[in-house]
Amino acid sequence: VLRAGVLGASGYMGGEALRVLLEHPQVELAWATSRSPGPIDRFHPNLFGRGIRTIAPEEATPCDVVFLAVPTEVSLDAAARFLEAGCKVIDLGSAFRLRDRSSWEKTYGLVHSQWPLAEEAVYGIPELHQQDISKARLIANPGCFSSAVILGLAPLLRESLIESDPIVIDGLSGTTGAGAELSRPTHHPEIGNNLVAYNVVGHRHTLEMEQELSAVAGQPARIHFTSIYVPIVRGILSVCHGFPRGNLTRATALEALREFYRDAPFVSVYDLPAEPDGSWQYLPYPWVSAVVGTNHCQIGLDVDSQRGRIVVLSVLDSIGKGGAHVGVENMNLMFGLPRTCGLERLGTHP
Amino acid sequence: VLRAGVLGASGYMGGEALRVLLEHPQVELAWATSRSPGPIDRFHPNLFGRGIRTIAPEEATPCDVVFLAVPTEVSLDAAARFLEAGCKVIDLGSAFRLRDRSSWEKTYGLVHSQWPLAEEAVYGIPELHQQDISKARLIANPGCFSSAVILGLAPLLRESLIESDPIVIDGLSGTTGAGAELSRPTHHPEIGNNLVAYNVVGHRHTLEMEQELSAVAGQPARIHFTSIYVPIVRGILSVCHGFPRGNLTRATALEALREFYRDAPFVSVYDLPAEPDGSWQYLPYPWVSAVVGTNHCQIGLDVDSQRGRIVVLSVLDSIGKGGAHVGVENMNLMFGLPRTCGLERLGTHP
Amino acid sequence: VLRAGVLGASGYMGGEALRVLLEHPQVELAWATSRSPGPIDRFHPNLFGRGIRTIAPEEATPCDVVFLAVPTEVSLDAAARFLEAGCKVIDLGSAFRLRDRSSWEKTYGLVHSQWPLAEEAVYGIPELHQQDISKARLIANPGCFSSAVILGLAPLLRESLIESDPIVIDGLSGTTGAGAELSRPTHHPEIGNNLVAYNVVGHRHTLEMEQELSAVAGQPARIHFTSIYVPIVRGILSVCHGFPRGNLTRATALEALREFYRDAPFVSVYDLPAEPDGSWQYLPYPWVSAVVGTNHCQIGLDVDSQRGRIVVLSVLDSIGKGGAHVGVENMNLMFGLPRTCGLERLGTHP
Amino acid sequence: VLRAGVLGASGYMGGEALRVLLEHPQVELAWATSRSPGPIDRFHPNLFGRGIRTIAPEEATPCDVVFLAVPTEVSLDAAARFLEAGCKVIDLGSAFRLRDRSSWEKTYGLVHSQWPLAEEAVYGIPELHQQDISKARLIANPGCFSSAVILGLAPLLRESLIESDPIVIDGLSGTTGAGAELSRPTHHPEIGNNLVAYNVVGHRHTLEMEQELSAVAGQPARIHFTSIYVPIVRGILSVCHGFPRGNLTRATALEALREFYRDAPFVSVYDLPAEPDGSWQYLPYPWVSAVVGTNHCQIGLDVDSQRGRIVVLSVLDSIGKGGAHVGVENMNLMFGLPRTCGLERLGTHP
Repeated sequence: VLRAGVLGASGYMGGEALRVLLEHPQVELAWATSRSPGPIDRFHPNLFGRGIRTIAPEEATPCDVVFLAVPTEVSLDAAARFLEAGCKVIDLGSAFRLRDRSSWEKTYGLVHSQWPLAEEAVYGIPELHQQDISKARLIANPGCFSSAVILGLAPLLRESLIESDPIVIDGLSGTTGAGAELSRPTHHPEIGNNLVAYNVVGHRHTLEMEQELSAVAGQPARIHFTSIYVPIVRGILSVCHGFPRGNLTRATALEALREFYRDAPFVSVYDLPAEPDGSWQYLPYPWVSAVVGTNHCQIGLDVDSQRGRIVVLSVLDSIGKGGAHVGVENMNLMFGLPRTCGLERLGTHP
Repeated sequence: VLRAGVLGASGYMGGEALRVLLEHPQVELAWATSRSPGPIDRFHPNLFGRGIRTIAPEEATPCDVVFLAVPTEVSLDAAARFLEAGCKVIDLGSAFRLRDRSSWEKTYGLVHSQWPLAEEAVYGIPELHQQDISKARLIANPGCFSSAVILGLAPLLRESLIESDPIVIDGLSGTTGAGAELSRPTHHPEIGNNLVAYNVVGHRHTLEMEQELSAVAGQPARIHFTSIYVPIVRGILSVCHGFPRGNLTRATALEALREFYRDAPFVSVYDLPAEPDGSWQYLPYPWVSAVVGTNHCQIGLDVDSQRGRIVVLSVLDSIGKGGAHVGVENMNLMFGLPRTCGLERLGTHP
Repeated sequence: VLRAGVLGASGYMGGEALRVLLEHPQVELAWATSRSPGPIDRFHPNLFGRGIRTIAPEEATPCDVVFLAVPTEVSLDAAARFLEAGCKVIDLGSAFRLRDRSSWEKTYGLVHSQWPLAEEAVYGIPELHQQDISKARLIANPGCFSSAVILGLAPLLRESLIESDPIVIDGLSGTTGAGAELSRPTHHPEIGNNLVAYNVVGHRHTLEMEQELSAVAGQPARIHFTSIYVPIVRGILSVCHGFPRGNLTRATALEALREFYRDAPFVSVYDLPAEPDGSWQYLPYPWVSAVVGTNHCQIGLDVDSQRGRIVVLSVLDSIGKGGAHVGVENMNLMFGLPRTCGLERLGTHP
Repeated sequence: VLRAGVLGASGYMGGEALRVLLEHPQVELAWATSRSPGPIDRFHPNLFGRGIRTIAPEEATPCDVVFLAVPTEVSLDAAARFLEAGCKVIDLGSAFRLRDRSSWEKTYGLVHSQWPLAEEAVYGIPELHQQDISKARLIANPGCFSSAVILGLAPLLRESLIESDPIVIDGLSGTTGAGAELSRPTHHPEIGNNLVAYNVVGHRHTLEMEQELSAVAGQPARIHFTSIYVPIVRGILSVCHGFPRGNLTRATALEALREFYRDAPFVSVYDLPAEPDGSWQYLPYPWVSAVVGTNHCQIGLDVDSQRGRIVVLSVLDSIGKGGAHVGVENMNLMFGLPRTCGLERLGTHP
């Protein structure tokens, strides 16, 4: 049994990590921290009655694996401290995701005080880096949009089925993605009937997408990404527009995705058969509501052969397969547990 | 391992039964039916990729336990048929919930063709009828509002802490409670920014509440119930107003609830401590979002000692503890399995 | 043309007052204030491009009528100051609503520094106090729930059709009712799929309801009120449960309401005919979405003659007929303008 | 005073036309039709108490102007009939929007029985075709997405600031855009927490966009458009991604838009100043909630100069500036009324 700690359990990402770890059959919770220690149910009513109390971050002691769900600048030193103490570390934040130091420092407006760790860290997308993850001490868990986009496009770029430049993506995010901190764009009267574009250009996740997809494509990928908050609580939908190289049919593209994810336990290519009358009574595209709370990513697509475009639709939960759940998947790999252990819960409907 | 069948798996209640049974460690799915057989993911995208297909109802064969999630008039004969074949039956609908035949026939506008079964059926609230459930062949699973209200008020009525007449209740329901059938009040443009009162008087669940709470109170309970659809997808909140007998404090009422549910695995009395400054930064009332998708019911309360009123707030998921999940809890009891088997999942936040 | 000022225009109530005044054919905006002066569109994007800038409160100069949309303790002195300068004042807050000083001071936790003004103020429900409003210098605009409840129950209490004790009410409010200030219960991830009970007992509006309805009934009215935030942006629904005196039919109760509001331009008794087959394809109850953004209140009802209960459903917009719009209606009366001037806009659907 | 009729008043578009016409100071309602005639409030509760009854379509008699809010195949003959009778006709549907007959017939799967009328019809975007509209007998009111996209991109294409090929657009639509007819993707339990992509390629409005924007650009525009339903009731946001020709700054692009719409009463270029500290406390992008129920379109933008992309964000109400309201704007122009007559209502906040 692994002993796992959660640094920063009062936020949404840390709370979801806690939920998954509590239900994991091979994990024992070592501790969870918050800046104002006390009953966890103050923050997370879903954990009411479990008797869990957070401790102050300073009281956190070494254990087998530590999940960091704290601000970037806190992660830097915390990762170093726990690694030095012999823990494995999974950073659910953005401290170690980029390979290019100057990009990172410019993007996050910080001096990176632990750059050797950034070089050591493995980018935590198991569908791309399973082997490296298995051997890693430190995981840079990917950004939520990054996961959705990379999983959606990697198969097509690896097979050179689409151009790597330009790729245009709109990312639609539920408000959980904005975190537990109060803000005007997530105040219910403002967003409840509204759509709030933010980071219309320059979203930080763009760099991760370009880094990973360029590697997959074998040439520079240029990602044009825009993000929009929509009034759903959890889940994101990435709408990725690419331009086919040569003639590309819907069937071919679906097959490329299916092949790529043939053995992937948590990524599925969503498609439903057309109705006998040719109409789509049941839409062939994935529904984000179906993967909320899980470690699943579903991908669908369509091709406009007349104008020459492919649209890849990729859905996941920003604190599920795009966050805490994939963090646990990485943990499983790092400790030699079955990859799906503790992550097999089904989504819900409706 | 039990073999379980779901009659009527295309709706929301049947789909949730399916989800819980698929994740139950002691159950093997025998079959699931729908009137238009085919891949289950047409109805339930959360089950995409599981390879489950529904069969026609006529093809359903006997197995250990059958869950009925079909219209009332269909349940009558189906229950008889499966019981005769030696199955145990859990009716998630309303065919066998009332002890008074004329009330039932008047309320449902049908002749009850299987009245001996209605007399045999056990009303499926484990917190009240655990022993009878353990020995039953046929369970009448309670209505969703009935579960919330009965669980909320039974402790107070058993201890005669409140009057049994009048009791006034507003039941707020997410739209899943209205079912998968399309209707104008659940058309998103109509309900998305709206509150839709329906069954303002005469809700069918009222009779169940009165039946069960009268038995608990030892005298006739008169329930004044009104139901309102609110634009959340899942979950219900019952706001129950009672009038204290004699002097009743908040602490006394909380203690009565806690005592009643001391050993109950799925009902908890929600309360959070006041802030040091006396304010309630964290509200002491249960949040319905925290129990959605689970078999949990949470109950909170407050007392207006000046005017003489107690308000009991009871939250659960209409297809969770108010439906399919409690059906599985009943199944566990009927077959001697641990009561919590397959039902221990945590709720989510946010 | 009246010159009107809005003290406190950055919040939702002040912003709605501004909108209505800007569209009022007999009003010219004198000024609008906010603590951080600047372009109004920073606060209210619906006013983008109008060139309106707020000024600091200290810069506000006397004009014909001043709307106060500021915290209670600020209203006290502001009302005195503007009245002394010869302005008429409409307080959209709670500074002058109660006739009983000790109740007010206990409820609001303040010493009332302007009690003679509280005694002078007219409670601003035109359907009850039109004549007094016409002659008033100072209006205490009612609380939003108070308006809905008083309008819903006054006709029945005046005619002694229901008991004045007990009356049980659940008030469901959109999040706009919580104001522009950020708070956890109105953070979208928390409330988006949730129902948040608050002020389960002891809501301040209860005292207004009792004050006004006792006067109407000619005997003490005892109101048992509970409030719940629901995830709609605007509008409230009050579900009022009363107990009939003697035999009361639905038709009689509807007629009493219709008679009471025969000449009322802004209150209507909502009812739709039954379908030929006896079903209610179109629900006979008012929809809150239909009155949002307007000065309309719609009231519906139903009677449970078997158990002896009447349910009155009353809908309005908390910053419309329950706030800024009725404030302008009061202004119209105070200045001898046609009562409906500037207030005749229709609601929307959907 | 104009006498106006609404053919097809039971749907959302027809109902909104009715609302705007009822509030228009120069219009008298001649009639409104529905297939099941009766009180209008059965369909539109916001019109409760107005005493309006619909008549059968066959009973509709000639009047000054007829708004068609009926299925495409019905519009064809209805337009011919009313034009012949001397009425002016504004088709809120899609019967006359395309200049290319074979495209139209292929897209709508119909033989166009009134092609000369399609050739005569003027495409109803006043910002592009004001003069022609003034002289027209028949207006083809644009599709909602078409309006948003064309208004957003026309200024940039006219000035050749962006490439006309490719242009990538995601259109996010509230569920009102799907109409009053019940469907699974707009059933609240399905969409309430969900994002439903549909017409991922091949949306019919694409052809209108290409037709109009090609004309503006003076060269073929290629539009890659995808549409997604989001759980808001009203309003659409079009996120348009274009590729700059040469060096394009945010300021230059904003200026081009401002210049283009200098005299436009209903299109504004949304932008808020940066905070003193450089942060954007108030987002510089338009909020769709601010224009719902109005004839306003707001446009914002941002430029990624590093990667070479411009994003134009355009918001309007699909049955407002994207539907019935712009239809009335066209009517005003056709009859020599002031263009803004009856259309000056402000949006709401929140």
